[in-house]
Amino acid sequence: MIRFECDYAEGAHPLIMQRLIDTNEDQTPGYGVDSYCEKAREYIKERCEHDDIDVHFLVGGTQTNLTVISSMLRPYQGVIAADSGHISGHETGAIEATGHKVLTIPSTDGKISAKQITKVCIDHREDVSREHFVQPAMVYISFPTETGTIYSKEELNAIREACEEHGLSLFLDGARLGYGLTSPQNDVTLKDITDYCDVFYIGGTKVGALFGEAVVIKNKYLKNDFRYSIKQKGGLLAKGRLLGIQFGTLFEENLYFDISKHAVDLALKIRKAFEDKGYEFMYDSTTNQQFPIIPDEQLEVLAKSYSFTFWCKVGENKSVVRFCTSWATKKENVEKLIQDIKAL
Amino acid sequence: MIRFECDYAEGAHPLIMQRLIDTNEDQTPGYGVDSYCEKAREYIKERCEHDDIDVHFLVGGTQTNLTVISSMLRPYQGVIAADSGHISGHETGAIEATGHKVLTIPSTDGKISAKQITKVCIDHREDVSREHFVQPAMVYISFPTETGTIYSKEELNAIREACEEHGLSLFLDGARLGYGLTSPQNDVTLKDITDYCDVFYIGGTKVGALFGEAVVIKNKYLKNDFRYSIKQKGGLLAKGRLLGIQFGTLFEENLYFDISKHAVDLALKIRKAFEDKGYEFMYDSTTNQQFPIIPDEQLEVLAKSYSFTFWCKVGENKSVVRFCTSWATKKENVEKLIQDIKAL
Amino acid sequence: MIRFECDYAEGAHPLIMQRLIDTNEDQTPGYGVDSYCEKAREYIKERCEHDDIDVHFLVGGTQTNLTVISSMLRPYQGVIAADSGHISGHETGAIEATGHKVLTIPSTDGKISAKQITKVCIDHREDVSREHFVQPAMVYISFPTETGTIYSKEELNAIREACEEHGLSLFLDGARLGYGLTSPQNDVTLKDITDYCDVFYIGGTKVGALFGEAVVIKNKYLKNDFRYSIKQKGGLLAKGRLLGIQFGTLFEENLYFDISKHAVDLALKIRKAFEDKGYEFMYDSTTNQQFPIIPDEQLEVLAKSYSFTFWCKVGENKSVVRFCTSWATKKENVEKLIQDIKAL
Amino acid sequence: MIRFECDYAEGAHPLIMQRLIDTNEDQTPGYGVDSYCEKAREYIKERCEHDDIDVHFLVGGTQTNLTVISSMLRPYQGVIAADSGHISGHETGAIEATGHKVLTIPSTDGKISAKQITKVCIDHREDVSREHFVQPAMVYISFPTETGTIYSKEELNAIREACEEHGLSLFLDGARLGYGLTSPQNDVTLKDITDYCDVFYIGGTKVGALFGEAVVIKNKYLKNDFRYSIKQKGGLLAKGRLLGIQFGTLFEENLYFDISKHAVDLALKIRKAFEDKGYEFMYDSTTNQQFPIIPDEQLEVLAKSYSFTFWCKVGENKSVVRFCTSWATKKENVEKLIQDIKAL
Repeated sequence: MIRFECDYAEGAHPLIMQRLIDTNEDQTPGYGVDSYCEKAREYIKERCEHDDIDVHFLVGGTQTNLTVISSMLRPYQGVIAADSGHISGHETGAIEATGHKVLTIPSTDGKISAKQITKVCIDHREDVSREHFVQPAMVYISFPTETGTIYSKEELNAIREACEEHGLSLFLDGARLGYGLTSPQNDVTLKDITDYCDVFYIGGTKVGALFGEAVVIKNKYLKNDFRYSIKQKGGLLAKGRLLGIQFGTLFEENLYFDISKHAVDLALKIRKAFEDKGYEFMYDSTTNQQFPIIPDEQLEVLAKSYSFTFWCKVGENKSVVRFCTSWATKKENVEKLIQDIKAL
Repeated sequence: MIRFECDYAEGAHPLIMQRLIDTNEDQTPGYGVDSYCEKAREYIKERCEHDDIDVHFLVGGTQTNLTVISSMLRPYQGVIAADSGHISGHETGAIEATGHKVLTIPSTDGKISAKQITKVCIDHREDVSREHFVQPAMVYISFPTETGTIYSKEELNAIREACEEHGLSLFLDGARLGYGLTSPQNDVTLKDITDYCDVFYIGGTKVGALFGEAVVIKNKYLKNDFRYSIKQKGGLLAKGRLLGIQFGTLFEENLYFDISKHAVDLALKIRKAFEDKGYEFMYDSTTNQQFPIIPDEQLEVLAKSYSFTFWCKVGENKSVVRFCTSWATKKENVEKLIQDIKAL
Repeated sequence: MIRFECDYAEGAHPLIMQRLIDTNEDQTPGYGVDSYCEKAREYIKERCEHDDIDVHFLVGGTQTNLTVISSMLRPYQGVIAADSGHISGHETGAIEATGHKVLTIPSTDGKISAKQITKVCIDHREDVSREHFVQPAMVYISFPTETGTIYSKEELNAIREACEEHGLSLFLDGARLGYGLTSPQNDVTLKDITDYCDVFYIGGTKVGALFGEAVVIKNKYLKNDFRYSIKQKGGLLAKGRLLGIQFGTLFEENLYFDISKHAVDLALKIRKAFEDKGYEFMYDSTTNQQFPIIPDEQLEVLAKSYSFTFWCKVGENKSVVRFCTSWATKKENVEKLIQDIKAL
Repeated sequence: MIRFECDYAEGAHPLIMQRLIDTNEDQTPGYGVDSYCEKAREYIKERCEHDDIDVHFLVGGTQTNLTVISSMLRPYQGVIAADSGHISGHETGAIEATGHKVLTIPSTDGKISAKQITKVCIDHREDVSREHFVQPAMVYISFPTETGTIYSKEELNAIREACEEHGLSLFLDGARLGYGLTSPQNDVTLKDITDYCDVFYIGGTKVGALFGEAVVIKNKYLKNDFRYSIKQKGGLLAKGRLLGIQFGTLFEENLYFDISKHAVDLALKIRKAFEDKGYEFMYDSTTNQQFPIIPDEQLEVLAKSYSFTFWCKVGENKSVVRFCTSWATKKENVEKLIQDIKAL
């Protein structure tokens, strides 16, 4: 069985494992103030082309989302997100558990628009009873989205402007950031994201690391005392250097981008194979997740050799499924899959 | 500089690193339902000599404490703990952030007694305005405590009886459990702890693992849906197998206990060296943390070659400091320290 | 200007004011354990035809909703409600502020069905990753709804059965309960509601009292220690007897129902006047709130003499507005309005 | 039985009842934006001699404390209070339920000092692991305290300076404010309190009103959107005018101060009677609560005719009890008590 069901099925990139072995006996202070973390922070600052940012390392995505959002909002404020956003439905109410409502906006492709955000804010502001409603104060977007799509520079710029006009902060969830930045369709850089966002994170768990997300903070209010928030929410790893070593390895040179591109290239090959076969797609993804619509009969054939994720039914006889590649996906496995698609 | 300042200064035991390397390319499902986690659960159940327990793996101690406690209590209930307990003051209000008050009991050695617990409960129950006070509903103890002391079987038994009499659940924080179980003074087994507690955890972060705490749940109410709680609080590691592999390695055979004993033996050698020198101790610890009271002048001498933790001043010219050993402490470094103590 | 914009524009029914004056100098213990509260509890138990219920008095609706819901749910659980439900959007995220997600169900008339509830539960249970989603554990309905509609006995019965099948508790918000129970369309009694619900409340604020909601609890788990919850959430009124006196006055004899019927009769007269004029209605309400669809031109005429609430636009030239009656609405004002409707 | 056990045993001052009757049929908008509230705000601003303050009306003390404190703090911050402070132990963990730790300071008379506050802040700031501890960010004091004592202007000034030096906001709980301001020992004015505090409240529940606390906010950050916080925490009274009418009556002329002085004068007469008898006092109170230490034998005699509150035992044969007067206490009852004390 060859697995294409998710992008966190393996351990870490071999270079990371090697570094962990090499440094295993070093003695360092705990909680992320060691030299490995310091170095990793420097590498990330260079890549973001911003010097006035803070970089913190957390273990996982839900933890990062709840820590960032609850640190930024006042109790009566909420965060705007696509109804398909990870915080909207896939985190067991983690945001609500910190006291905040997620204000969902309908989305068909995982993205939300500056126009939608503006409408939410104006509707709120113009309501004479607005104190009876949660105040929108932050925007959460994912890049790429949960359905593999990405925002263009123009779209991000418009969202940034809407945020500024309405006093919202902008938070970008980059759990799969590498796979978005290395998409051939992408026109956004890490610098652009740093320019546009108050805070975002660079995903490690799904992009080569054992675990870890690097939170980049530009907003002054959020910078202030953020380590207190990490500790309180249970996210301050005792052996913090493990995160520093991993992100240091990913960003010292080009590893993060190289392995991301590897995954995207393979995903697009799979996409092309399905296209050539005449299948349509649920989402227009140019990143590492692909959502073909496949007759159930053919799915059964594929399921004998490959694992993938069932997404939803389409009509009587077809289904949307997800094929996922990652830094760890083997070229030969993709080739085999492509042959099998052709043979359907 | 030789470090004795904490028990999480290094990576993981070499055998754990080897297993992580060996399994790195395996593909497994995420979130702790893989076969490595299953095996580790089995090993731990055997060690606890209980079959009706659930075992979950979380990343760190604060995360574990807040997840367990908030899952067990109703909103108006609080948890009783020593004023020196980790949850009382060292976790940035993590328990309060989930809505619950920590009801502190004064302690001079890190331990609390059945008698103290009983008094809190009776005082509460007998107060005619008791609804104006937080209701005690859980007891939190550490084994060993934050000051290296351990409970005897008799003491634990008395605490269990007090809990049952007053409708409290009992939670034992075993962040350093191995160092308590392998203390020469100890008369408690893992089975005893499972017998007495509703829930406890076996610490990995400070005892040989890169990170990880194994939560053992006997209480039915808490068992129910605990994975929802882990996910909501941000503690459900995507690559859960990392925890399974580590705890599997520690508990497949005797590694957890062997490396704990190693640390305790060395700590007691250091203790003896200070005793022979005529120094007294702040706490009567027979585990891996030692708290000698040392003239400041001599401390300066030791500080040239060793790092340790300042605890508090005693009078004008003396201080309490903490020397900590771990699974990673090297025998030759301890020998050197002992010579230097003799030479003071 | 004659006001039809809400049902809380005046003080209290004169009989209540008289009782408050008569008892003003009495000395009683605080916090709701006085003899006035005791008597009011007895009257309500008789009306509910249940002896095994607890009755508590709180000050307002949002306070009641957040106290009841947060007392009933475990941290990872959520409450199902219509998207138009009061807790869904009109309480500044009060439920989320206690840590719980409101799981909304679409509704066109303010009601939700047993079928919708069942679907939410089955979808949740059948999801292999269900731990990543908030667990549905309670159903919140309003009677009458925010749009004036009411559930039939058959509908309530079906909802109760769905709740039992899926392990949900049922909470009925009766902020306007009197106006529902005295609707000519209604086939539900207070006893039925007590039979069907785990907990519900009888609204006083909008039905004759200065303020106050009487919470009726049948569910054993919720009964236990509910006064702790009231106190913690800030709802335990020091001079609790004020609530006892008011609810005692309303339920000693038939006052609550008499004044509710008064409001409903007048509302239906207004409804008939609009119907006779040929106007349609947004919602099929037979209670004290009416939502006619009126040409904007005519609305302007009415607005000269009457205040009412703008609800939403319908097409280019029409609007839905709300006319509200209450226990305090004067017959002569309704007659005048009816004449003016006829004259439009 | 004559009651001296608390200051909330009766209804409201007759003048307030009269105003409620007089205005009962007026129609007003809800939620505190009516003209009665507006007028009351103006009266209070004049009394505080500050124009740049916001005034909000809430129903009760616990509600006010939890709303103010949770609105002011960031999630990882805590509030400093005396261990005898109302928020420390008497509110069922209401502050913790909003996520914040109460950082208690030992106090023998209910007061805390600038020196104690400073020490807490310096200890926190100087701790190298300070992120592992709750950050002190607000000071909560009561005036008078729960034990009847009051702060001098000099003490308040010192506390204000400590707050400014360490970046803390200052919140004064004035549940019994009138009884403090009219104490013969008092040298503080409402203007002083407004000068010193970021936020405080003027208690109505215990000083002549049926219920109600007037929150005065000077701090800009807290002013912003405070009505959202009131609504979310369940404190926005639908018929808000009830609060406006009551505070309007108390502050239009001198009623609040006149009735407070009445209570204090009577309390001091009781105090003198006990002093003349040679009894000592637990607290040096010059306000409406008195805490004499009385042989148990004599207490039994008094208990036949009077109710009072048991506070604590002193040695074998004596007890501290609390005698409380209020705006409603009758002169003749105090005279009778004094005779009975003399006759002991």
